[in-house]
Amino acid sequence: MSTLPDCQTLSLRQYGAILHLTLDRPESRNAMSLDMVREMSTVFDQIAADCTIRAIILRGAGGHFCAGGDIRDMAAARSQKPGAGKDPFRDLNRAFGRLIQQVNEAPQVVIAVLEGAVMGGGFGLACVSDLAIAAENARFAMPETSLGIIPAQIAPFVVERIGLTQARRLALLGLKIDGAEAQRLGIVHQVVENESALAAATDAAIDQLIRCAPQATAATKALLHQAGTVPMSDLLDEAAQQFAETVRGEEGAEGTLAFMQKRPPAWAAKNDT
Amino acid sequence: MSTLPDCQTLSLRQYGAILHLTLDRPESRNAMSLDMVREMSTVFDQIAADCTIRAIILRGAGGHFCAGGDIRDMAAARSQKPGAGKDPFRDLNRAFGRLIQQVNEAPQVVIAVLEGAVMGGGFGLACVSDLAIAAENARFAMPETSLGIIPAQIAPFVVERIGLTQARRLALLGLKIDGAEAQRLGIVHQVVENESALAAATDAAIDQLIRCAPQATAATKALLHQAGTVPMSDLLDEAAQQFAETVRGEEGAEGTLAFMQKRPPAWAAKNDT
Amino acid sequence: MSTLPDCQTLSLRQYGAILHLTLDRPESRNAMSLDMVREMSTVFDQIAADCTIRAIILRGAGGHFCAGGDIRDMAAARSQKPGAGKDPFRDLNRAFGRLIQQVNEAPQVVIAVLEGAVMGGGFGLACVSDLAIAAENARFAMPETSLGIIPAQIAPFVVERIGLTQARRLALLGLKIDGAEAQRLGIVHQVVENESALAAATDAAIDQLIRCAPQATAATKALLHQAGTVPMSDLLDEAAQQFAETVRGEEGAEGTLAFMQKRPPAWAAKNDT
Repeated sequence: MSTLPDCQTLSLRQYGAILHLTLDRPESRNAMSLDMVREMSTVFDQIAADCTIRAIILRGAGGHFCAGGDIRDMAAARSQKPGAGKDPFRDLNRAFGRLIQQVNEAPQVVIAVLEGAVMGGGFGLACVSDLAIAAENARFAMPETSLGIIPAQIAPFVVERIGLTQARRLALLGLKIDGAEAQRLGIVHQVVENESALAAATDAAIDQLIRCAPQATAATKALLHQAGTVPMSDLLDEAAQQFAETVRGEEGAEGTLAFMQKRPPAWAAKNDT
Repeated sequence: MSTLPDCQTLSLRQYGAILHLTLDRPESRNAMSLDMVREMSTVFDQIAADCTIRAIILRGAGGHFCAGGDIRDMAAARSQKPGAGKDPFRDLNRAFGRLIQQVNEAPQVVIAVLEGAVMGGGFGLACVSDLAIAAENARFAMPETSLGIIPAQIAPFVVERIGLTQARRLALLGLKIDGAEAQRLGIVHQVVENESALAAATDAAIDQLIRCAPQATAATKALLHQAGTVPMSDLLDEAAQQFAETVRGEEGAEGTLAFMQKRPPAWAAKNDT
Repeated sequence: MSTLPDCQTLSLRQYGAILHLTLDRPESRNAMSLDMVREMSTVFDQIAADCTIRAIILRGAGGHFCAGGDIRDMAAARSQKPGAGKDPFRDLNRAFGRLIQQVNEAPQVVIAVLEGAVMGGGFGLACVSDLAIAAENARFAMPETSLGIIPAQIAPFVVERIGLTQARRLALLGLKIDGAEAQRLGIVHQVVENESALAAATDAAIDQLIRCAPQATAATKALLHQAGTVPMSDLLDEAAQQFAETVRGEEGAEGTLAFMQKRPPAWAAKNDT
């Protein structure tokens, strides 16, 4: 198990195989500051090879998920001059996009628990979760164009999440939608009434994912991400090779044995939350 | 502002920043003749660089959107011999496909208002709108295969619109569906009861889009179209560069100022419809 | 008409232009054995150029569609040593993937009729049908990761079927879902109450597809599969060429004539089921 870093903008707690990562700047509705981007990025770097962590529960403190970018960072960037291959606005923006890519491709199962504001960058983060559970009161939007700017690092992930057809309406009209519509459009998988229902739905998801072998899950997630970008026949050739390796690996052996012995496999032990 | 061309098959009216483009051959349920393709293509060419137009409302005259290709043009093409790199059927078909591409990628927000027949080519046009609002009485189909031909320029846009799974059922069974099913499949975003509800929904969409900065909206639309065709990291690099430019641009400056002064930005003034 | 092969694991019946292919190992809930993969693959090879067959009805005997891979084949593969470019697990797995690709791209319309277990490989097969009709009692899952292995040949087709967003939840949590949720996610197109409703829905689909010209349907299906993999402009150029050929072809001529004579075209004669 890796030692988690000390963070100023995040609160981190690990219960068994589950890491709870909470955006913790409630005074600004957890706006995504550059410090928060850096700290989150460090956390995801660090746990990328840590197979003791099987899932990450992403949420915000104080009743909101994340209200978007931080205005103060934008003002600071404005005061800096671009030069020598550096551009503070571009670099700020791209750093956030890299974080979204990290979360998208994390080997763990990422569960987003969404309340209140899920705006701009917060919307982007929600769109790369493996399971998104929203409270009815959650509000989703890309308000960028109403400020004269563009949802640069977010828009491509919204298309990947819900397809071009729904993304163009949402982005080009700058609409704000609630949990129920977010579910209808496929942004979230589940919408529940209140905070205690959010907790129950999260626990149920953890009980479910814990039955799936961690390495097989990580390999499956990587495979899903390749669909549509690698030609199908190449992808299936590679996948068949991986299949053979997983069958012969430790998890494949334990899974087969447990199945024959009619017992749960070792990885399915109840998580000590 | 560009002077709009004189058209025989279209009726054009501009109110403020909104161009109303009506397919106007009600005697043939606005069948897409070669003349109509040419005239529409000219209009979209002409407004492509016209930032005084922010949205295009696409509809049909006389209670139908568009019944598909024009039988007379087909007959005329049949009487011509292909030769010297020319093929009248192929060229007729491809010209329509080019028009669909133009509408798909127009920098303006394209709103399709759909009633009655939305068939063949009309179906294709509906599939490249940014917002599609249908009356309950709208009827959607690709009837080509029942005539022994193929929905050549349309089928790829149907897949882009609703995905392969729904497109294969719709195209291969030659189904005709109504507004409610079109919404369920994601062909249209909204379905309303009658003509006055269509008008109200269109007005509401205009009120909404007018709040979004025109150039930022155009840049966002172009970005959405690149998702899935450009590798994600390259796309995000390019998008970050664009982000920096929009922040420093005129709209970004006005947007920030308006936000701090708690007033609507200049572009959000009520459209003089 | 080709002579259909003798099969041990499948039951084949042809009524007119419709081939009924039933997975017929009810004692193991039609588990996909290597023999079944080979026999099915031979059938699809043989009918690939057979234009007397216009649709394939795929179902399982004994109340289940297909429970996944066969445990005995897996055990047999385990006893073989990989070597000299051969790997029994890999080859077993890839052979099944090749079958899925064949079914996906068959020139005929493939209708999957789904009851009971639709698991693992059975789930994969369902995901490449042109029309999927499920009974309410159908149960869909990818149980692979709970056995320590991966849904190698299936996962990419699930993404193609329902998109990354829904696929990641389903695959990474190892969820089992019913017919209604399968329809909501877009795995199946239709869900019906019981076996007689399944039969009625299948007959209605056959009545519908028989109105569409067989070669035009096959060309349209191939075109749909190219969308998103071939650049749009190239695809439309090629499609316009094909359009011209179908207009001048036998079906195009008959379709036009029948339309003018206000009679059904020759291919739409009632199927002698």
